[in-house]
Amino acid sequence: MSISELRVGVVGAGMIGADHIARLTSTTAGAVVSAVIEPDEARAAAAAALAPGALTYQRVEDALAAGTMDAVLVATPGQFHELVLLPVLEAGLPILCEKPLAPDPETSWQILQAERKGGRQLIQVGFMRRFDPEYRQLRQFIAEGSAGDLLMLRGVHRNATVPDSYTQDMLINDSVVHEFDVIPWLAGATIRSVEVRYARRNELSPAHLREPILVVMELDNGVLVDVEMNVSVQFGYQVATEAVFQRGVARIGQPQGMQLWQQGRFQLEENASFKSRFRAAFDIEVQSWADAARRGTVDGPSAWDGYKVAVACAAGVEAMKSGRPVEVNLPETPSFYVAAGA
Amino acid sequence: MSISELRVGVVGAGMIGADHIARLTSTTAGAVVSAVIEPDEARAAAAAALAPGALTYQRVEDALAAGTMDAVLVATPGQFHELVLLPVLEAGLPILCEKPLAPDPETSWQILQAERKGGRQLIQVGFMRRFDPEYRQLRQFIAEGSAGDLLMLRGVHRNATVPDSYTQDMLINDSVVHEFDVIPWLAGATIRSVEVRYARRNELSPAHLREPILVVMELDNGVLVDVEMNVSVQFGYQVATEAVFQRGVARIGQPQGMQLWQQGRFQLEENASFKSRFRAAFDIEVQSWADAARRGTVDGPSAWDGYKVAVACAAGVEAMKSGRPVEVNLPETPSFYVAAGA
Amino acid sequence: MSISELRVGVVGAGMIGADHIARLTSTTAGAVVSAVIEPDEARAAAAAALAPGALTYQRVEDALAAGTMDAVLVATPGQFHELVLLPVLEAGLPILCEKPLAPDPETSWQILQAERKGGRQLIQVGFMRRFDPEYRQLRQFIAEGSAGDLLMLRGVHRNATVPDSYTQDMLINDSVVHEFDVIPWLAGATIRSVEVRYARRNELSPAHLREPILVVMELDNGVLVDVEMNVSVQFGYQVATEAVFQRGVARIGQPQGMQLWQQGRFQLEENASFKSRFRAAFDIEVQSWADAARRGTVDGPSAWDGYKVAVACAAGVEAMKSGRPVEVNLPETPSFYVAAGA
Amino acid sequence: MSISELRVGVVGAGMIGADHIARLTSTTAGAVVSAVIEPDEARAAAAAALAPGALTYQRVEDALAAGTMDAVLVATPGQFHELVLLPVLEAGLPILCEKPLAPDPETSWQILQAERKGGRQLIQVGFMRRFDPEYRQLRQFIAEGSAGDLLMLRGVHRNATVPDSYTQDMLINDSVVHEFDVIPWLAGATIRSVEVRYARRNELSPAHLREPILVVMELDNGVLVDVEMNVSVQFGYQVATEAVFQRGVARIGQPQGMQLWQQGRFQLEENASFKSRFRAAFDIEVQSWADAARRGTVDGPSAWDGYKVAVACAAGVEAMKSGRPVEVNLPETPSFYVAAGA
Repeated sequence: MSISELRVGVVGAGMIGADHIARLTSTTAGAVVSAVIEPDEARAAAAAALAPGALTYQRVEDALAAGTMDAVLVATPGQFHELVLLPVLEAGLPILCEKPLAPDPETSWQILQAERKGGRQLIQVGFMRRFDPEYRQLRQFIAEGSAGDLLMLRGVHRNATVPDSYTQDMLINDSVVHEFDVIPWLAGATIRSVEVRYARRNELSPAHLREPILVVMELDNGVLVDVEMNVSVQFGYQVATEAVFQRGVARIGQPQGMQLWQQGRFQLEENASFKSRFRAAFDIEVQSWADAARRGTVDGPSAWDGYKVAVACAAGVEAMKSGRPVEVNLPETPSFYVAAGA
Repeated sequence: MSISELRVGVVGAGMIGADHIARLTSTTAGAVVSAVIEPDEARAAAAAALAPGALTYQRVEDALAAGTMDAVLVATPGQFHELVLLPVLEAGLPILCEKPLAPDPETSWQILQAERKGGRQLIQVGFMRRFDPEYRQLRQFIAEGSAGDLLMLRGVHRNATVPDSYTQDMLINDSVVHEFDVIPWLAGATIRSVEVRYARRNELSPAHLREPILVVMELDNGVLVDVEMNVSVQFGYQVATEAVFQRGVARIGQPQGMQLWQQGRFQLEENASFKSRFRAAFDIEVQSWADAARRGTVDGPSAWDGYKVAVACAAGVEAMKSGRPVEVNLPETPSFYVAAGA
Repeated sequence: MSISELRVGVVGAGMIGADHIARLTSTTAGAVVSAVIEPDEARAAAAAALAPGALTYQRVEDALAAGTMDAVLVATPGQFHELVLLPVLEAGLPILCEKPLAPDPETSWQILQAERKGGRQLIQVGFMRRFDPEYRQLRQFIAEGSAGDLLMLRGVHRNATVPDSYTQDMLINDSVVHEFDVIPWLAGATIRSVEVRYARRNELSPAHLREPILVVMELDNGVLVDVEMNVSVQFGYQVATEAVFQRGVARIGQPQGMQLWQQGRFQLEENASFKSRFRAAFDIEVQSWADAARRGTVDGPSAWDGYKVAVACAAGVEAMKSGRPVEVNLPETPSFYVAAGA
Repeated sequence: MSISELRVGVVGAGMIGADHIARLTSTTAGAVVSAVIEPDEARAAAAAALAPGALTYQRVEDALAAGTMDAVLVATPGQFHELVLLPVLEAGLPILCEKPLAPDPETSWQILQAERKGGRQLIQVGFMRRFDPEYRQLRQFIAEGSAGDLLMLRGVHRNATVPDSYTQDMLINDSVVHEFDVIPWLAGATIRSVEVRYARRNELSPAHLREPILVVMELDNGVLVDVEMNVSVQFGYQVATEAVFQRGVARIGQPQGMQLWQQGRFQLEENASFKSRFRAAFDIEVQSWADAARRGTVDGPSAWDGYKVAVACAAGVEAMKSGRPVEVNLPETPSFYVAAGA
């Protein structure tokens, strides 16, 4: 059985939520926003105005009771994810949950239990890099093996600036979190250890931040990874990866687009934020999720992927504080997730 | 009044039609394929299978009579466009008509008359380059004038190969036709004359073709244009333009994507066909048309644009045959199209 | 017999002459500047100061009489070349003569006669592009034929600005002159006709200039060439060529060097003038000439090449004035130059 | 006092020595090879044939006694450097000594003492990267500070392959040795510690090698450095550096040259070996050394630089063996070298 038009309830109508409401309405085929769940009434009304016909609710339980949703997109802050996910899992609806699954490994584990109880996978976690065309191309290239074994991955994640509210731990939990998901996915391997090294501090960074940092990871297949995490580089937004193989090197995330010669220089515009860098990735992610939800399946990063990232983040924060390598210890993959090929 | 979900009838279920049916079904928000109009029954059934719920008809009149369409996408060969467009115009439905509007200026003019009779613009012609993100960026850059006046445009249109059925005139009517639309749109000007020069013949071209050619155009604002038209360059598909300004140069259509070092070389994959080069352009074109159709408007290239291109093509073919510059003579823009800002 | 250290007399101590004196002194192996010939005494003294041990003379005849030169580099304005070349040819010394050989075909022909009388080739004309590493690489690539026949050459020659003293004819005689030498050299063919088209005029150009222009040439092997000649593009200096083959395209002259991300942009510095763009070409040209002179041979562009370019320039100026294609008619290659393989 | 033509004795006529003999003869202005010192007579004769007029000697003492040299270029294997340097220092001749200065810190220190005894600096060590135009441009950019403080340096050093004779320690002593010189030179700082991490082993590497490795350094100004050292990457030779600043990023060592579209790909040829990658660097290094020697000065990397690199190499080898960070402890700069601004 397949749903012809997926009625999506969006929980959380902040910046990210509103963005998804606009996307689902104007860009995603086969889906409409039927419900906006948001306790702040003004914000709810503003967001619902983006989606003709959408009803507003204050709590997800109300929307579930009304029976107006076929699927749910969760865009609240991470600390509220569990509260939203549990009733939706109980109702058996497919979910796209913005990253992180939950703020810590323990809560993530609780969510896994709740999903498992329902007997089938319902959660996709919003690690949108997996849907970026270049990341996909690189992953396919690694898997094909035409350049031999993958030996190293060398990455950069550079933001122009961050607000004062951005904390030291967010370097790991908000930013490197994407690498913790996408690197194992690229390399077909698991993170074994994490170490964090400090570069010379950028004086343009908020006073409470000590960055950039270099995150060094070892994977269980021997691949070594180093990622520059830099949130104050001023010039723009850049996420790039270089993959070193036995017989070659591949690189993604390089500047593209219209070329301009002006004022003594050849120039390409760099991305200004993740919104332009990952616009296609977000669009493909949501389309892909909606397509799978209409078929009754999940094919993106699972709750188990979300759990593994939560464990890596905890290790990453400890590594950043201690200055020492920290092991990443994972339980065996539960058979519930193995079966699904997650 | 706005239509929540646009029911689109697709006329013609060949390669291009099937492609649009898949796009409207899987990629376009707010639209469904409700009807497939195609005289070949097997082809009609195959195409309809891509669009759950779509009905099949042999003639567009049948579909119109059935009242199952809010808008029509015309993807038949160009010589049949008039036959399809006239009844749809009479029915007052919005149309996306694949290029060319019609095979010659006279027929194009007939279509203009028919549209005008209905009292409002209904036709968008499928010049998808206008929706390509880089062409749009270049047009905006020209319009802003930050590098001063535009002085020249230098283009390339290179195909890997063409089938034996591709004729000499198709160099102009099938390929350069896109330049005849997009160059005036970029430059904010009209084509005044066309000349065609022959390069050394490519011996890998089908025996009846004499190409590559160089098409030289003068615009009425003095801008000079030269376009290499080359359909046998073997290595891939490339459409690129260099814009020369008073104080700078801009270039679009350059290689992009994953970078690879292998076997002594740094490499980027070049496009293999227009399908990858203009995938985004097609998606944006159809989304943009469907959005406008739901609002009851047209905002892409108009039937008048289609007419102007037909006149330029006729001049281009004459120029190619004669080896001499040929003037492009257009009537004044009919007030019907001026009013609409076309 | 080979000269261990070539004593070079430099005639003309203006900007180009002084540049060559510094080059011969500091960069060229196996050569020293032994004489500076320059009627302006202050200028002569300043230039001689760059070359320890160099003597100054007012007339080339004085230097010849003094017997202090093994070879002569001519860097006077073109209209004085004949006056300098004739006595040096009579003395039998090897010559590097800055371009053009002479300002017109007739004078160039006189110089050919004088060289022929001496019984062996002595003159190399200063078309330095032939020594540019990328031009050489492109020529070799064309000759190897791995991408099939050459079909078209598409070029740009862009200067930031020119002084008010730069005349309309200098577009051809000073700038396109390089293309008239290097294109036949690249393509292994002769120019058959030249046509000049005007682009929209650059209002930043000196008031008496009408440019940029597009120069269209046909070669006797059918290769079609178009070159944008643009002397007011403001942003920098750029000389680039795209070669179109049966099975591929090659491009030289693209931006290189240190890559910089700053202020929202990825940037490469473009050349500011021919001095940086062709620095290596000049160094290699002079080294190559000095090496050949020490061995008693000439292996760069010959006086015959200089003559052919003078004929093409005359046709080019006529084409620019008339707006019509002009044939380039050359006599048969004199056996004196055929024998030498020129 | 200045020497008009520097008579250079080259000690060691193996591959590197022969290369320098050819360079001094054909490329370097103001220098000739007057002596080839090489115990192997056949090799000495072959090398001397490259340099017209050069005499051959078996021992450097013989050449010194003959008084036929103004300066000495040492191109023997590193373990023989001390033996050659001591008598030349005693004779007071300027020296260009191929890297390393000596195989270990102790021997290097002995050489420092010998140089100091003579009362003026005579030794330049052959760290040619300092003469590479892009390294120079990057260093100047760092020094100017227009992008703010330098925070990180991220490098790659990739060889296609190495012979079986290449040992694990040579990863540090032969290859990373260049980074140990050039990174402090770029950053204006001293290496404080070195750590070595192992990537997944490249199975195409000789069986006794465990590589690629990642070398992580901290400089005394807080700059963090990571360098991928990879000697089996098969596709070519690549040395590149990315410099991360407060307000930007700069990158050198990227692919350049003729661009080619062929067989579905846009391609640039990558360097095949250090010979093409650093050809200009070698030429400029030797020219610069010869110019300084003629003036009686030294202006390249000094013996003290050579000593510091020897200390860093010893720490690097220990770090590679232990897997732990190792401090790099240097004595204070001797006043003899401070005075000279080294």
